[in-house]
Amino acid sequence: MTAPAQAPALDFVFHPRSIAIAGVSAKESAVFGGGGFVSSLQEIGFRGPIYLIHPTAPAIRGIKCYPTLRDIPDAVDYVISSVNARFVPQLLEDCIAKGVRVLHLFTAGFTETGDADRAKMEQAVVARAREAGIRLIGPNCMGLYVPESRLAMMNGQTPEEGPVGMVSQSGMNAGEFIRYAIPRGIRCSKVISFGNGADLKAADFFDYLADDPKTEIIVAYLEGIQDGPRLADAIRKAGHRKPVAILKSGRTEAGSRAANSHTASLAGSLQIFDALCKQAGALRVESLEALVDMAVTFRFVKRLSGPNVVVVGGGGGASVLAADDLAAAGLNLPPLLPETQAELAKITHEAGTSIRNPIDTTSLWEDQGFEATLRPCAEAPNIDVLLYHTSFGSGPGARQVGLRDRMRRQAETLGRIQEQSGKPVVVCIRPSVSADAFEQAADFQELCWRANLATYPSIARAGIALGNLLAWQQLQD
Amino acid sequence: MTAPAQAPALDFVFHPRSIAIAGVSAKESAVFGGGGFVSSLQEIGFRGPIYLIHPTAPAIRGIKCYPTLRDIPDAVDYVISSVNARFVPQLLEDCIAKGVRVLHLFTAGFTETGDADRAKMEQAVVARAREAGIRLIGPNCMGLYVPESRLAMMNGQTPEEGPVGMVSQSGMNAGEFIRYAIPRGIRCSKVISFGNGADLKAADFFDYLADDPKTEIIVAYLEGIQDGPRLADAIRKAGHRKPVAILKSGRTEAGSRAANSHTASLAGSLQIFDALCKQAGALRVESLEALVDMAVTFRFVKRLSGPNVVVVGGGGGASVLAADDLAAAGLNLPPLLPETQAELAKITHEAGTSIRNPIDTTSLWEDQGFEATLRPCAEAPNIDVLLYHTSFGSGPGARQVGLRDRMRRQAETLGRIQEQSGKPVVVCIRPSVSADAFEQAADFQELCWRANLATYPSIARAGIALGNLLAWQQLQD
Repeated sequence: MTAPAQAPALDFVFHPRSIAIAGVSAKESAVFGGGGFVSSLQEIGFRGPIYLIHPTAPAIRGIKCYPTLRDIPDAVDYVISSVNARFVPQLLEDCIAKGVRVLHLFTAGFTETGDADRAKMEQAVVARAREAGIRLIGPNCMGLYVPESRLAMMNGQTPEEGPVGMVSQSGMNAGEFIRYAIPRGIRCSKVISFGNGADLKAADFFDYLADDPKTEIIVAYLEGIQDGPRLADAIRKAGHRKPVAILKSGRTEAGSRAANSHTASLAGSLQIFDALCKQAGALRVESLEALVDMAVTFRFVKRLSGPNVVVVGGGGGASVLAADDLAAAGLNLPPLLPETQAELAKITHEAGTSIRNPIDTTSLWEDQGFEATLRPCAEAPNIDVLLYHTSFGSGPGARQVGLRDRMRRQAETLGRIQEQSGKPVVVCIRPSVSADAFEQAADFQELCWRANLATYPSIARAGIALGNLLAWQQLQD
Repeated sequence: MTAPAQAPALDFVFHPRSIAIAGVSAKESAVFGGGGFVSSLQEIGFRGPIYLIHPTAPAIRGIKCYPTLRDIPDAVDYVISSVNARFVPQLLEDCIAKGVRVLHLFTAGFTETGDADRAKMEQAVVARAREAGIRLIGPNCMGLYVPESRLAMMNGQTPEEGPVGMVSQSGMNAGEFIRYAIPRGIRCSKVISFGNGADLKAADFFDYLADDPKTEIIVAYLEGIQDGPRLADAIRKAGHRKPVAILKSGRTEAGSRAANSHTASLAGSLQIFDALCKQAGALRVESLEALVDMAVTFRFVKRLSGPNVVVVGGGGGASVLAADDLAAAGLNLPPLLPETQAELAKITHEAGTSIRNPIDTTSLWEDQGFEATLRPCAEAPNIDVLLYHTSFGSGPGARQVGLRDRMRRQAETLGRIQEQSGKPVVVCIRPSVSADAFEQAADFQELCWRANLATYPSIARAGIALGNLLAWQQLQD
């Protein structure tokens, strides 16, 4: 019998047994404020009771309301505040009286307004909460998405758990990360939107995710640097234990100004942050798209033995651009060896196609030709990773019957080749321009990730992600 | 009465009255070869007769077949060859006997194979065609998409005409350009896929499009440089008359190799090509996406009076990243002047949002708030272009009823503000992750371009396109 791993210190924050929400509009149709949290918690199936606080309404969305937090007859672990900022001090007193452990301030209107009185009010709230042993998330943030606790910050967030943890200063970027990562097979352990970070800060959450046994990969979106030395320590600890990718905004003067009015962040120097990441073994990326791509890459590609890619897919023009894009990302496209080319020549019918690299043959459109083309490419001794590219809604595939069966066989084949060759296989599915094609592409994408394949929306983005993975590996050595 | 403009010399190439296709498989289900052209010509509604050439079949796809071209009783202007390369010399003799004016060689298997005998065969075919006064398109290409003549190279190509002409060495990239540009409101005059360019070359087509009164904007995808001085002259002529954007592949060693096996192209030096473009007033872009974006930008934005952007849209995190992306593309996000901020403050309800720039207010979600927020932004004296960003399938909008009506009102408002303020308004619609949201986004995109608005799939891409437009404008001065 092994003793259970000790839970990280902040574990209680992520596992509330009951929640109260203050500031839910009595108008059911209101799209802002606390009502959104009621809706998302109900949708994901929060298992404990949800209490609503409203001065006059008897019930909202079918849930009984209490005039104040203190009127709730049962224990409350976690409070979500959507009340106006000026009511927060009173709500905090109620939390203290009630023995609440965590107060999530969706409420905005503090330091980020640039108003000195409001900044002072934020400091007073933090001081009082600390004195009473209550931890604050926010203000000015979307809070938590924790599938295992059935906590969601927005509608449409799956209850399925997974290994990716996220620290985000922006609720919207957290939501966008989840939205784009889920269809590509990413499942999350904990996603934290922490806004101004008045009490709990990025450093606390990096620390927690580094310790959290449910989290294997960490991604982050940061606008500012609070308490630099502590944040550096936390990123270093996380980066030495787990793959970490960070998107740092405010890299231009305009971005810094926007970050300051969004979450009161001081963006700091990107050069210093870059050096910090390098020393911590953490990868810095340039866009939210790249952050999603790195979650996919850490999850499904894991490691590259080298920079040599073979590109396989129909369409000469796409292959030529692919070669440029991948080479620009620091990867190589070596010509296949004569013996590999000889094997491919056996199943290539027509001239005008290439079997050197990129591989662009119509034999890919036939079932036997598909595996017979891909297998020698993956097994080629001078190749480290196979990139297969395709699209839906045009080209010969659009005219074929039995598309769904063909997609299933292709995804299975690609997954099997990855497993048997021991080399990563990645799949690029170009964007669709019709709803039908969108659904086909989404189906194929799901078949691929369920076969443990990394998927990307373009060859250029796959190239950047694989180049990033190599750069990250070098930081580890 | 003004005399009609003289038709450019190559005009007959784009206006065939009858077409014969050699090499259509008798198997109706065949997805390669001549059958694809029959299908796309039927779909777009080619107005003249289509004749099929087949040694034995009496009819294919309902169209009567003739054993050879010479057996066709009527005149044939244009022949599409999908026969094996070794049959091309005989087909050419038949074309000469029949008085055919243009032979489009979809047939591959010539110089691009790297085989010296096949290269020699290509040269012999060109020599014989020139001697007989027949012009060749190709070999190894998809040929023409000319809506006014009801010529299509692939299925799904609209018969609607427009001002954008394209010269493309790759049929696939021509097809992808069309596929992605159409839903964003681009309509084409002539699109030419010319492959190896054995007879008619990029220079001929640039020359033609420069003269063509139906073409107002020219885009191009080139893999290699054939007959450099002539191409330079043609690009210079085109660039001095019309907006021109060119994607040149083979910018890396791997890309050059791929270009060579695709269309037998020698990529040449990108530095030299870059200098040529600058001197010609033509813009060089880095990706197919950027090429589509420039067609949209030349078509709908047309001209910027300066680099100052105001960014408007919901979501603080997106605004911060937008500021970074736009600044990185060479644009400015100046803070709005106090008087503009004062006007916005009247209709902004809550704190925690910014009315400096980027603008991120929840008042955008209300009908009156939408126009009341956007109008002062567009009219602000220190602003040259307004960028509005949104997405579908998440956020407050997803929960609202009457979405379609709301979208229509928004697109109308945006179009009206563009017209009345005299400043470009561009719309960024982030990618969707569900089929429902995809359809909503596609609807909104269409409403926007029909209101004469440029649309982009991301703020970063809009930034690159607007930065490119400014760079192009500087080349014109």
